[in-house]
Amino acid sequence: MRFLHTADWHIGKKLHGYDLLTEQRDAYEQIKAIALAQKVDAVVIAGDLYDRALPSEDAVSTLDAMLVDLNRRQHLPLLAISGNHDSAVRLGQGREWFESTDFYLNTTVAEGVKPVVLGDTQFFLLPYFEPFSVRQYFQDEQIKTVAEAMVRLVTAMQANFDPDKKHVLVAHFFAAGSQHSDSETLVQVGGLNAVPVDLLAPFDYVALGHLHRKEALQNEPVIKYSGSPLKFSTSEAADTKGVWIVDTDKTPVKVTFEPLKPLNDLVVLTDSFERLMDPEVAYPVTSDDFIAVNLTDTTPIANVMQRLKTRFPRIIELQRVNQLDVTPEKLNIEEVQRDPLTLLSDFFEQVADHPLTTQQAGWAKTTLQQAMKEEK
Amino acid sequence: MRFLHTADWHIGKKLHGYDLLTEQRDAYEQIKAIALAQKVDAVVIAGDLYDRALPSEDAVSTLDAMLVDLNRRQHLPLLAISGNHDSAVRLGQGREWFESTDFYLNTTVAEGVKPVVLGDTQFFLLPYFEPFSVRQYFQDEQIKTVAEAMVRLVTAMQANFDPDKKHVLVAHFFAAGSQHSDSETLVQVGGLNAVPVDLLAPFDYVALGHLHRKEALQNEPVIKYSGSPLKFSTSEAADTKGVWIVDTDKTPVKVTFEPLKPLNDLVVLTDSFERLMDPEVAYPVTSDDFIAVNLTDTTPIANVMQRLKTRFPRIIELQRVNQLDVTPEKLNIEEVQRDPLTLLSDFFEQVADHPLTTQQAGWAKTTLQQAMKEEK
Repeated sequence: MRFLHTADWHIGKKLHGYDLLTEQRDAYEQIKAIALAQKVDAVVIAGDLYDRALPSEDAVSTLDAMLVDLNRRQHLPLLAISGNHDSAVRLGQGREWFESTDFYLNTTVAEGVKPVVLGDTQFFLLPYFEPFSVRQYFQDEQIKTVAEAMVRLVTAMQANFDPDKKHVLVAHFFAAGSQHSDSETLVQVGGLNAVPVDLLAPFDYVALGHLHRKEALQNEPVIKYSGSPLKFSTSEAADTKGVWIVDTDKTPVKVTFEPLKPLNDLVVLTDSFERLMDPEVAYPVTSDDFIAVNLTDTTPIANVMQRLKTRFPRIIELQRVNQLDVTPEKLNIEEVQRDPLTLLSDFFEQVADHPLTTQQAGWAKTTLQQAMKEEK
Repeated sequence: MRFLHTADWHIGKKLHGYDLLTEQRDAYEQIKAIALAQKVDAVVIAGDLYDRALPSEDAVSTLDAMLVDLNRRQHLPLLAISGNHDSAVRLGQGREWFESTDFYLNTTVAEGVKPVVLGDTQFFLLPYFEPFSVRQYFQDEQIKTVAEAMVRLVTAMQANFDPDKKHVLVAHFFAAGSQHSDSETLVQVGGLNAVPVDLLAPFDYVALGHLHRKEALQNEPVIKYSGSPLKFSTSEAADTKGVWIVDTDKTPVKVTFEPLKPLNDLVVLTDSFERLMDPEVAYPVTSDDFIAVNLTDTTPIANVMQRLKTRFPRIIELQRVNQLDVTPEKLNIEEVQRDPLTLLSDFFEQVADHPLTTQQAGWAKTTLQQAMKEEK
């Protein structure tokens, strides 16, 4: 069979305050078009359908419309799991009715070890889980980590393997060796929560969600993150987003990447303020693109964000890339302990490239004296 | 056909802080038992399935389990609408799949004017609505009130009437003439929001939700509120809760009431503190019942709530029924304008049945002088 692998839709997510529903609907339409053009037999969504356990009504109606469209209108079988961003209970509302039209949505570990069979393939749809729920499921207090849990779960799944079928795992966790991107929180990936990829060897294909970059497991031919359909952080700005098309009738399975074209891109611009504001300088961005600015200037600029917004209305980040390095190891203790006025004068000279004028020095002195008086 | 009419489950509702899920599950089991014993062909739930637009996960999983049980396990067709307490969007998640097993859940006005046909009956499942949504639906700016909206909606429904079928309206609003109970807010019932019962004449039966007392429309033989399955306020303490069983093969339809037995009842006890605390006095209540106390005493009682709780752990209300009447019209202006010490002495004598002692009068004087000084 042939299926499409996507994940981490995060419907309802906002990017630095900007609503992404328009971009998410556009990405959905592209995914649907790929699914139809590629004549896939099923669509796999590997968790984090919503961005929040308590999605807004807009997010609920948007995702519902997408799932209704794919499954009820286009008659595409759906295979989905809850991710760590979803509320398993809320997402699972109605799941017992979904199976009547081959929409399989698993939200518990118990559901995950029983395969869903479509064509030549057994799908194990394992939702995001915490070790305690696997501990409960196996009644085994020894299970402390996600990796220990997966050892038991894979064994339980293997007991249900039909040797005449291909075996696909759909899961939502951090597989060891992954390079994570900023849009996943550090504390949630890696460490005790990682699953070594060796554990996943029994499967013909592993369709993962959780990390937002498909590059996270570059060296694994059949263990793949699809990544998110949209860029959710500047660390993903250079990425090409997309979905995997997986053919299970080959051994090993055949995996091809189908890119998505962002409706409004996330672009990092590194330049000086003068050039950024210069109408003569053309940047390959639209006024709806999300812009992260790396400012190369070293001098202070008044109202910098406000002024940049007149040219780039959807700025999401502003960083100074030529900042003075003031990390502790670079500081000379003697210099730091000098009197405030000397420190201020030195600092001013460093960023402004000329010393304080006599008048400025006078203002600085008066202000510092005033500040010290108030401190007492 | 024969159907069961219930409404206003309010799953997740708390009664003065007490979780009602246990009582709600018990009421559900009784409703199911009645449906099975009466061999009904369908169950109608006329809105307010949840108590809140954003129900807790516990509430979601509780209601979901009930609906799965009724429809998927017991194979009972379900006919339901969203009420004013439900979020139409959230409740409606998955509704497009539900119809495959005869579970019809309407959340929009457009859905309400198209009948669902089961056996000899056309059901019009009209969710709770605001006039603006009907204004939008008919593209008619003249529609300002719920009554005006209903005129148009009933006409639209009648255009879809099959003369060979019975016609049942399932709706969630305040029908004029109803006596409301305290558990519905005054501002939401009556006035511009009322629907005159005359408008409902075209239907063989109207299954209403919104008001919590089945007594709300006593004189209407075929326009009925089922009321809530549980007592949600002390004004309902004397009510018998239950469901209607409706047989559509008679003209007029046959309507019979099936009572529910409260697992833990809501009881009003009117008595003196001394008797209420007296272990010799037996009240027909259990320690899990919800108790509203009407205290007949006129004298002050220290820690009255705390002490009553030792005998009645789930007190939900405490009222003094022999309070002095201090409503404005009973007050003598001259009396009110007397000096604070005289007022205090008079008040003390009224509630304590004896005047202040000399020592008490001294304390009162000192305290009042102190208070007046602080006021300046």
